[in-house]
Amino acid sequence: MLHRDFIRDLPQKVGSTVVVRGWIFRRRTAGKLCFIEVRDGSGVVQAVVKKGAVGDAEFEAADKVQLESSVAVTGTVRADPRAPGGVELSVTAFEVVSACIADFPLGKKEHGIGFLMEERHLYLRSRKPTAVLRIRAEVVRALREWLDGHGFTAVDAPIFTPAAAEGTANLFKVDYFGEPAFLSQTGQLYMEAAAQALGKVYCFGPTFRAEKSKTRRHLTEFWMLEPEIAFGDLDEVMGVMEQSVSHAVARVLERCRPELEALGRDLGKLENVKPPFPRVSYDEALKVLEGTPAAIAWGEDFGAPQEDAISARYDRPVLVHRFPMKIKAFYMRPDPARPDVALGCDLIAPDGYGEIIGGGERSSDLAYLEGKIAHEGLPKAAYEWYLDLRRYGACPSAGFGLGLERTVSWICGLDHAREAAAFPRTLNRVYP
Amino acid sequence: MLHRDFIRDLPQKVGSTVVVRGWIFRRRTAGKLCFIEVRDGSGVVQAVVKKGAVGDAEFEAADKVQLESSVAVTGTVRADPRAPGGVELSVTAFEVVSACIADFPLGKKEHGIGFLMEERHLYLRSRKPTAVLRIRAEVVRALREWLDGHGFTAVDAPIFTPAAAEGTANLFKVDYFGEPAFLSQTGQLYMEAAAQALGKVYCFGPTFRAEKSKTRRHLTEFWMLEPEIAFGDLDEVMGVMEQSVSHAVARVLERCRPELEALGRDLGKLENVKPPFPRVSYDEALKVLEGTPAAIAWGEDFGAPQEDAISARYDRPVLVHRFPMKIKAFYMRPDPARPDVALGCDLIAPDGYGEIIGGGERSSDLAYLEGKIAHEGLPKAAYEWYLDLRRYGACPSAGFGLGLERTVSWICGLDHAREAAAFPRTLNRVYP
Repeated sequence: MLHRDFIRDLPQKVGSTVVVRGWIFRRRTAGKLCFIEVRDGSGVVQAVVKKGAVGDAEFEAADKVQLESSVAVTGTVRADPRAPGGVELSVTAFEVVSACIADFPLGKKEHGIGFLMEERHLYLRSRKPTAVLRIRAEVVRALREWLDGHGFTAVDAPIFTPAAAEGTANLFKVDYFGEPAFLSQTGQLYMEAAAQALGKVYCFGPTFRAEKSKTRRHLTEFWMLEPEIAFGDLDEVMGVMEQSVSHAVARVLERCRPELEALGRDLGKLENVKPPFPRVSYDEALKVLEGTPAAIAWGEDFGAPQEDAISARYDRPVLVHRFPMKIKAFYMRPDPARPDVALGCDLIAPDGYGEIIGGGERSSDLAYLEGKIAHEGLPKAAYEWYLDLRRYGACPSAGFGLGLERTVSWICGLDHAREAAAFPRTLNRVYP
Repeated sequence: MLHRDFIRDLPQKVGSTVVVRGWIFRRRTAGKLCFIEVRDGSGVVQAVVKKGAVGDAEFEAADKVQLESSVAVTGTVRADPRAPGGVELSVTAFEVVSACIADFPLGKKEHGIGFLMEERHLYLRSRKPTAVLRIRAEVVRALREWLDGHGFTAVDAPIFTPAAAEGTANLFKVDYFGEPAFLSQTGQLYMEAAAQALGKVYCFGPTFRAEKSKTRRHLTEFWMLEPEIAFGDLDEVMGVMEQSVSHAVARVLERCRPELEALGRDLGKLENVKPPFPRVSYDEALKVLEGTPAAIAWGEDFGAPQEDAISARYDRPVLVHRFPMKIKAFYMRPDPARPDVALGCDLIAPDGYGEIIGGGERSSDLAYLEGKIAHEGLPKAAYEWYLDLRRYGACPSAGFGLGLERTVSWICGLDHAREAAAFPRTLNRVYP
């Protein structure tokens, strides 16, 4: 094993000689001293190269090496309260592992988004994307942790599907050995089957929508967390939504504070994110919007103006429930007390981040679903297995889908969902 | 929230009245007693319906209800040391939530694999697939836990890619808004970029191979765990392989003992799975195979006969390293001490389960990789970003890919990798 000491561990190694392997993050020379910030993925440390303390060739190498070249730096760990991590390195040996063949494409100047996306494989090394990736990993970990701790079993939904859950539009088509197959838009229908086996389940994987949208909320490929609860109802899933999201935010605050600070995130706003979240019906929301520029007629769906106007009234995410049936997916359960609205709910994030969760109860009524499938012109043969879930021991079932990139965008305070993915895929981009 | 008591929690509720909501798993009537096993995904409990203790109509319903109908059973929890979970229910109210419209398609008789696959959405409720899904979830959880606890950051690799990591054959092609894109065969190249940002990373998601193989080890869609370590080497990744796999097996033994027993798994064999794993070079393996039916000439790849013959010599997984370069992917690093072999390694599971991991060091040599890409006829434009990782601060990098379904098949002792996926996708199947 190639010996190396991780920068994260240096505060425990004061006085020792260590070898740090990483990349040149920043560099400046002042006479006989060369100050080099080295990053290794676990942290950043300042290494001080002093003329005379290393050979002349080494000093010159340190003085000339381009940013983002890879290096091996041997030195003594010194406590320094002024240093970011509380330590710095007094260098005794400096080796360039691999010099950049030219200046690193991402220098200090501002770059356009197109260029940053084209150079995404290099841009990931910058402070901001690195912070976002760490927070994303913590959000994923925390959401799984909450569900695993509350009786849910993770079940992976398939990606290749014979049909679309929410209509045949916006599907990516694949050549499956000469036959057409489609990339999954949601794992929900499969989770309903799994919930009849395991009670409480979730899938967490990539989903695909061939939408020609170029808004800041849309990606063609995004990860979705989809819990499903046999014998669950709207009230129960609203509780799971607010508790799991609050847990994820709390974990990020607890474990990713330096990353949130690197992103300039307002921590106070995240600290407000605690259950219970306010609950507002679609009808109540429409009354609130009356007379404002965001006013809509009953039956129209929410867009960004409506979501923003409602969420602006609260200091934490808001649950909007009972949207009109006619704008919701075929499988949603009508409210028995008022069949023109669905027993469903969206979770709208604060500060204009919009809907990050949609969910609710599924209809368990075979005849009703057969009618909806016929009415919406969906290919019934592809749904026979789904209808079987109502033919053999149907049960109330409820769940939701949480869009990971939108959630991470909100928690990080990003401008665009594409910043929340390592290698985002949009209408015009599948590279790198 | 719809009130229900989970069967898992009943041992803590002896003497209380509870409501269990679930499905009829087994049923028999003996005179005035009807014994019903109810399952709810958290467990199975026997409910005893006594004529007179419930209304006549309820007794008749309990006596007649088909298997897998959904029910709500109210009763008192009684301790019974003979019962599987130590408790049973004395029923005071019995309600059929939704009766099956006909006999459940999966009765007690044996069914062919084609039928079981066609009815997978219903078959998941059976004891064996349920046990497998629980074990799979624990394997995923444990692998992530080990990596998260050892400084790795989870980074999701993209699914849509401009090119193939391991050659252009066996790729699924997608119509991406009129342009071709391909489904990812591996996230490795992306993880190399992420490792230069974060040091130690892993992705864990679905990957796709359009292979026309019909062996018991092949699926067209399978999940792969791919850790990648900047400045890592073969020795270090072999350590991560044996430690993470051993941790997963230990967690399954600790948390899924009833499931392993339901599958009839030999626990002693799993208990042997502890590091260190034996390490055998390709050359050493060929010597062992000499004179046996599995003998091969130097330069030939391993197939099932070679894997099985080598693994049969050990009581735990075996690491076979330094395969010939010419049978390995273009990005692998030749051994500087002997450039005709790669600094790579496969992990071969015991008992004929074959290769479950492949990995090793990546070449960080730009000119070498450009030569390999040209020599193998790969589309260079699609790899420019990958070559950038060698142009700007190249570093030694090592990692591996673990096939989840093969790993779960081995841990569970299954006949076919398709049994390890909830909704397996094979050459002839994308339904249900």
